[in-house]
Amino acid sequence: MNRKELINKIQEIHSMLCVGLDTDINRIPQFLKDNYDDPIFEFNKRIIEHTKDKCVAYKFNIAFYESMGPKGWVSLERSLAIIPDDIFTIADAKRGDIGNTSKLYARTFFETYNFDSITVSPYMGSDSLEPFYGYDDKWVIILGLTSNKGSQDFQMQKLQDGREVYKKVIERCVDFGDQTNTMFVVGATQADYIKEVRSIIPDHFLLMPGIGKQGGDLKSSLEFGLNEDYGLLINSSRGIIYSDSSAQFDKSAGLSAQKLNDSIRDHVSF
Amino acid sequence: MNRKELINKIQEIHSMLCVGLDTDINRIPQFLKDNYDDPIFEFNKRIIEHTKDKCVAYKFNIAFYESMGPKGWVSLERSLAIIPDDIFTIADAKRGDIGNTSKLYARTFFETYNFDSITVSPYMGSDSLEPFYGYDDKWVIILGLTSNKGSQDFQMQKLQDGREVYKKVIERCVDFGDQTNTMFVVGATQADYIKEVRSIIPDHFLLMPGIGKQGGDLKSSLEFGLNEDYGLLINSSRGIIYSDSSAQFDKSAGLSAQKLNDSIRDHVSF
Repeated sequence: MNRKELINKIQEIHSMLCVGLDTDINRIPQFLKDNYDDPIFEFNKRIIEHTKDKCVAYKFNIAFYESMGPKGWVSLERSLAIIPDDIFTIADAKRGDIGNTSKLYARTFFETYNFDSITVSPYMGSDSLEPFYGYDDKWVIILGLTSNKGSQDFQMQKLQDGREVYKKVIERCVDFGDQTNTMFVVGATQADYIKEVRSIIPDHFLLMPGIGKQGGDLKSSLEFGLNEDYGLLINSSRGIIYSDSSAQFDKSAGLSAQKLNDSIRDHVSF
Repeated sequence: MNRKELINKIQEIHSMLCVGLDTDINRIPQFLKDNYDDPIFEFNKRIIEHTKDKCVAYKFNIAFYESMGPKGWVSLERSLAIIPDDIFTIADAKRGDIGNTSKLYARTFFETYNFDSITVSPYMGSDSLEPFYGYDDKWVIILGLTSNKGSQDFQMQKLQDGREVYKKVIERCVDFGDQTNTMFVVGATQADYIKEVRSIIPDHFLLMPGIGKQGGDLKSSLEFGLNEDYGLLINSSRGIIYSDSSAQFDKSAGLSAQKLNDSIRDHVSF
């Protein structure tokens, strides 16, 4: 999916919502496990059915599928297949390795699974990220300033020129991608820093986790994060998909997505 | 596997060699693809057969298996099953995410696949690494100073106190693990810095890629990296498994492993 299509979709349904499919076998309703061979897929199918008109992106947290062994990857593939073509898909995999290995990761997520995007970890530097580029209409989503407490440990450390490591990452990464093929992860728990991120990359999309369970501040995140093309994908995972553990979980997920959309719309004019 | 068992194994066979199973479907001999349903496993089986008395560890580069779709994970599982119990196994996965996700990655590699260790990326900080701890006789192998050119981009950047980012990573990570459950990746291409790494962590094992195709300097790496318990796992992947593309590839792999062991023995007294 290209940038124009993504922006059009946001405009069309008045939503910047990304639903995170962190589907955990230990947290899905028992009746799905009792009655279906592939309960992970059945859960996702129902969540997708009730949220697909309310979000512009789905983020698959690869850890959850991988933990199921080979059959988890089958569940992933089947779930991907039922996502409408005009919804952006994210492989939240946080990969990154030496060039010949990153090339394989790109092949996996862009070719084998045909995701629109993959999240990558920048620690190993430029030659670990470059292999993810060069695919038409595919996106690289680089960890910038993450939503967790541990972001303080290294990302927020100051370099000798006074800039934090995460800023160096964002500035360096702009060298090999641009706003048509690169996004950055910036946590909504980091509202104070979003303004600074925007001063470096006014035009890029930010993938923003941390709303909901992680306690991020939606209002400030929108205030500082929005740009002329919206420029944000606001992710919620557990807050949506596990909003109810009954057989009505799917309807509740739809309502939670709607509620988050409404909160976003309080601050955004589409 | 615990530290004592690993050291005993090194002592017993006079080897610190780790063979990297970066098994690429595009690089394995045609006859395996023509005659077997699972050519990746068949390749690994033959490599393992000819190297298992010459190495103390096998490192599976997860990217290569993942790129094959669900069947790649079956190949991985089958290959793992034929590795002798007294050989250390590494899931080279470079994972790392917020706590609840890292927990899943730990579950995947330590429980579903029963690896002895996993490589992790420290960018997201302490709470992304902690979930990998707490398993008996399992190891966390943290990226320190990697072997690729891109290690200059962020790892080698100097912080305000004059230390490089990679040193901060190593120093911080020592807080939640010790030499009985933590190793660090330090590239053999970084021989000049190994001495500095050793000044911070004299006792830890280092997993050392970069010998062979990547051009690392074996002699200096050993000179600066060895400690009283050996303290090194020297990895070679492509240099061993692809040393010959004929039907004799497995014998050639064994010879290449032998040759690297001989080079190491020139500098180490076991």
